[in-house]
Amino acid sequence: MLRTWFQTLPTRGKSSIYASYRILRLRRLNFIQSYLPQYRLVSTQNTKPAEKKSRVFYALLALGGAVAGFALYEHKYKLFNVKFNEINTTSELNSEVNDEKPSWHTKPRPDLPTYKTIDVQNHSTIENRVWVTYGVGVYDITEFIAKHPGGEKIMLGAGSAIDPFWAIYQQHNNKEILTLLELYRIGNLSPEDEVSTNDMGSPWANEPKRHPILKPASIRPFNAEPPLKLLGEHFFTPNEFFYIRNHLPVPILDIKDYELEIAIETTKSGTAEQVKSFTFNDIKRMPKYTVTAAIMCGGNRRSEMTTVKSVKGLSWNAGAVGNATWSGVRLRDVLLEMGVKPNENLHVVLEGADLDPTSHPYGASIPLSKAMDERGDVLLAYEMNDQPLSRDHGFPLRCIVPGTVGARNVKWLSRIAVSESESSSHWQQNDYKVFSPSTDWDTVDFSKAHAIQAMPVTSAICTPAEGEEVKIPVNGCLTVQGYAWSGGGRRILRVDLTIDQGKTWHVAALDQEDLPDGRHYAWSLWTARIPIDKITAQEIEIWAKAVDSAYNVQPETVANIWNLRGVLANAYHRIKVKIIQ
Amino acid sequence: MLRTWFQTLPTRGKSSIYASYRILRLRRLNFIQSYLPQYRLVSTQNTKPAEKKSRVFYALLALGGAVAGFALYEHKYKLFNVKFNEINTTSELNSEVNDEKPSWHTKPRPDLPTYKTIDVQNHSTIENRVWVTYGVGVYDITEFIAKHPGGEKIMLGAGSAIDPFWAIYQQHNNKEILTLLELYRIGNLSPEDEVSTNDMGSPWANEPKRHPILKPASIRPFNAEPPLKLLGEHFFTPNEFFYIRNHLPVPILDIKDYELEIAIETTKSGTAEQVKSFTFNDIKRMPKYTVTAAIMCGGNRRSEMTTVKSVKGLSWNAGAVGNATWSGVRLRDVLLEMGVKPNENLHVVLEGADLDPTSHPYGASIPLSKAMDERGDVLLAYEMNDQPLSRDHGFPLRCIVPGTVGARNVKWLSRIAVSESESSSHWQQNDYKVFSPSTDWDTVDFSKAHAIQAMPVTSAICTPAEGEEVKIPVNGCLTVQGYAWSGGGRRILRVDLTIDQGKTWHVAALDQEDLPDGRHYAWSLWTARIPIDKITAQEIEIWAKAVDSAYNVQPETVANIWNLRGVLANAYHRIKVKIIQ
Repeated sequence: MLRTWFQTLPTRGKSSIYASYRILRLRRLNFIQSYLPQYRLVSTQNTKPAEKKSRVFYALLALGGAVAGFALYEHKYKLFNVKFNEINTTSELNSEVNDEKPSWHTKPRPDLPTYKTIDVQNHSTIENRVWVTYGVGVYDITEFIAKHPGGEKIMLGAGSAIDPFWAIYQQHNNKEILTLLELYRIGNLSPEDEVSTNDMGSPWANEPKRHPILKPASIRPFNAEPPLKLLGEHFFTPNEFFYIRNHLPVPILDIKDYELEIAIETTKSGTAEQVKSFTFNDIKRMPKYTVTAAIMCGGNRRSEMTTVKSVKGLSWNAGAVGNATWSGVRLRDVLLEMGVKPNENLHVVLEGADLDPTSHPYGASIPLSKAMDERGDVLLAYEMNDQPLSRDHGFPLRCIVPGTVGARNVKWLSRIAVSESESSSHWQQNDYKVFSPSTDWDTVDFSKAHAIQAMPVTSAICTPAEGEEVKIPVNGCLTVQGYAWSGGGRRILRVDLTIDQGKTWHVAALDQEDLPDGRHYAWSLWTARIPIDKITAQEIEIWAKAVDSAYNVQPETVANIWNLRGVLANAYHRIKVKIIQ
Repeated sequence: MLRTWFQTLPTRGKSSIYASYRILRLRRLNFIQSYLPQYRLVSTQNTKPAEKKSRVFYALLALGGAVAGFALYEHKYKLFNVKFNEINTTSELNSEVNDEKPSWHTKPRPDLPTYKTIDVQNHSTIENRVWVTYGVGVYDITEFIAKHPGGEKIMLGAGSAIDPFWAIYQQHNNKEILTLLELYRIGNLSPEDEVSTNDMGSPWANEPKRHPILKPASIRPFNAEPPLKLLGEHFFTPNEFFYIRNHLPVPILDIKDYELEIAIETTKSGTAEQVKSFTFNDIKRMPKYTVTAAIMCGGNRRSEMTTVKSVKGLSWNAGAVGNATWSGVRLRDVLLEMGVKPNENLHVVLEGADLDPTSHPYGASIPLSKAMDERGDVLLAYEMNDQPLSRDHGFPLRCIVPGTVGARNVKWLSRIAVSESESSSHWQQNDYKVFSPSTDWDTVDFSKAHAIQAMPVTSAICTPAEGEEVKIPVNGCLTVQGYAWSGGGRRILRVDLTIDQGKTWHVAALDQEDLPDGRHYAWSLWTARIPIDKITAQEIEIWAKAVDSAYNVQPETVANIWNLRGVLANAYHRIKVKIIQ
């Protein structure tokens, strides 16, 4: 029936349909190609100058055809009665709303060139054109950006894969949007690109697959944070967006062979020196306990400190933090069962199964008083947001030390020791310490500073983004949204915002758990609505400052808390945005 | 001499002085009236229309005169050499703080009508207008009620005399508040209804003797601090120099009759509701426990906040803090013995024996979790630096809540209750809370803020003093000395100093106890030696900032932490000194 209808069309109609077909790649219509081989587009490779003119002609023809064809396709859809769901590959995403979902993005298109991830990454700004990938498709979406109903958010995927976004924002997974997307297709993603180098035999050979939305601060070890806008949207950070902070290659652990060794190394603990081994099942059999806790990297917001003077460390933005529920057994319960009594001069040394090239494990320690404190909520956790820990987050067992710097929340736990000394590891002794702004590498003495444990109060603006253009009517309000957190279980009491350098402060509304102070380990999300009048400058700077339950407040500038490792950059968070009225 | 000088003045000068005299009512200058009867103001009663014009003229004259006269009075103070303290009715008020106190309320104003007590009683609600009397003045304070820093308490005096209240809350007896009150004056109290305010039998008749080195911020109640230089010299502040912060008259307690009532008001405490009485000997028989703890007033350094914008509260310098050893019994031990179990949703309500005019005691509360925490070190203390508590410091028993704002360290303990609610006292609910810098008296809602418990990190320079001239040889060192402290048992890790606005920071040497973090309740004294070279400006500004064990740091300026009650002024401490080389 369709073929008959097609043959009745004039040549111009046929060419439009063909061009649409080229773009839409409706498999069921592939007979068109056999009918109209003369419309095949020339290859972009090895194009001779003489061919350029005809290439332009064909391109224009294709464009017009695409428009006409698309209109026709939309209009005649029911007539065509193509069962798109038959084309779908098996996908866990295909809920009932996806029954009619086309799947062009899952197949390479032989008529288009092949690109590598690096090519896509090189197109992440309007100036250089904005490319994205979805499945194996490569798309130039530059012209679409202004029309995106979700606004600037589309730029989160610029130069990378949009699959993770669409996995969350499933409203994209419908016929209309997939069809629209295919209009912007310019190529195919190179199949071998996913494994870019030969990792066979290297310690990095078995790194887990990461969510492409995470922006790496380093690849090996893998360290990455989610975009701030996304981070600020979820009180419980989805596991796949949770920042990853690895110091070494991710170890491969089999739950059947897994053993956790717990050693009592001093009788000052109130019990005999001893070593005990726990299988994963031993752990799972103990009472399960759940706590909500934000974990933050000591280097979160380090990139701001670099603006004062260079520092050594990964250049984190404000996304090296996440908030989750953690479930497991209480370290307190395990130690009490072994006979340990509180002693505030002792330490709990934690070791991971991740090894450095000299086979030394990652290590850290916390005071025994934190571990033994009933309100300290230190866990040996095996679940994160009700899911088993992923490999990147410490499978099968991770120490969760609520209110304490991320570095002490040791992953892939292999050994715990109650000891008279702190961990001797590099990360406890010569890293994660803070010095005066006038201490530099020629004068620093790491043995003179205290290892970071509880974190200071901080906050960050997640929306709008730095440099964003925000449309606000005269006498309308600018909505600002972000997170705030303090260490040591201190609840956030207030977040103040200003757009006039502190002349006026606006108090944000808080979204937080109602837990007692001293045990408030979750972060708080906050939203403020700031009135924008006519006289507001076109570019404004927004400052955010949080106050915790000890009424500690963020320092005003990073300059006066600068330190050579660039840690604890908790000054007011400041971003500039353009107001369009 | 004064009369001679007065007579040499031109008429215009005389009239100005006269008008000032009318307003300031300096008794010793009452000869002026006899010299210049022609300036006597006309009565407002039975004023004939023809006299109105001249009344306006005289009023304007009086106004201008008041201004000129006051300036002259300020300027010529030493020339006049008037012994103002002789004018004071009560000799105990003879400190310089009250020298300029006006006394309009002690004189009838002939321009205003006379009312009887019954008239005043008929105005005790907002609907009928709220009148009060003070001395012989009748005032309509309806418009002021919403602005009263003490909140709803002002309504206790509605329709009656406020003299007994102000006898207790003597912070009202200053020039600023008396001037404000006079603005609301509407009449005079009929002479036979006057309230007597003589000290005989007054609550202030038995105040203890204080060390003259203490500088009073107010006399009634007595609030005073030692000079900073002296304060910084002793790791353990000598008892007689320890700042005094009283909210009410000091009660007279006899150790033989003394009883402490402890009430369990909820079965959520893990035990039955009950009330138990303890004599002083009962307390002394329990195990004695000693802890070093600094206590700091929430208003310490308030005077710095006033430089930004006026605040309501006693004008403390940086001396409203002291460090001492405290001995007594652990509140935890007492509560455990009564069967109380930890419950972090409960509170411990503390009441003193000091009473307000309505016989309500001073009160405050702390979380039960702080009281029950073995590391919280909350004491019912009877000794301060190995001496029995003095009357000003809470004899015979005071609650010591280490790491917590002074206001919760309730003195003259009379009652302790384990309760489901915080203390309902004014000082817990409507005072000692912090708001955003843009919250003022017209927008404040005390129920929305959390009562201060643990204090934020702070420091102060004790030596040199503000404005001091310091002799230092070229290429010598400036020695700077002071204290630093943080609440919640957080140890001070570092104190940094700068004399070049933060370009260079000098790390101070710390003198502190070696106690574990989380239980480090004593302050730290510190000393820094800052090199002074030839090019240092003659006047330098020294900044001090401290860092605590959660790496919280002081905020840079008071402007951005300003709050209407002027509490927790913990910005960098900044002083200017002159260097003489």
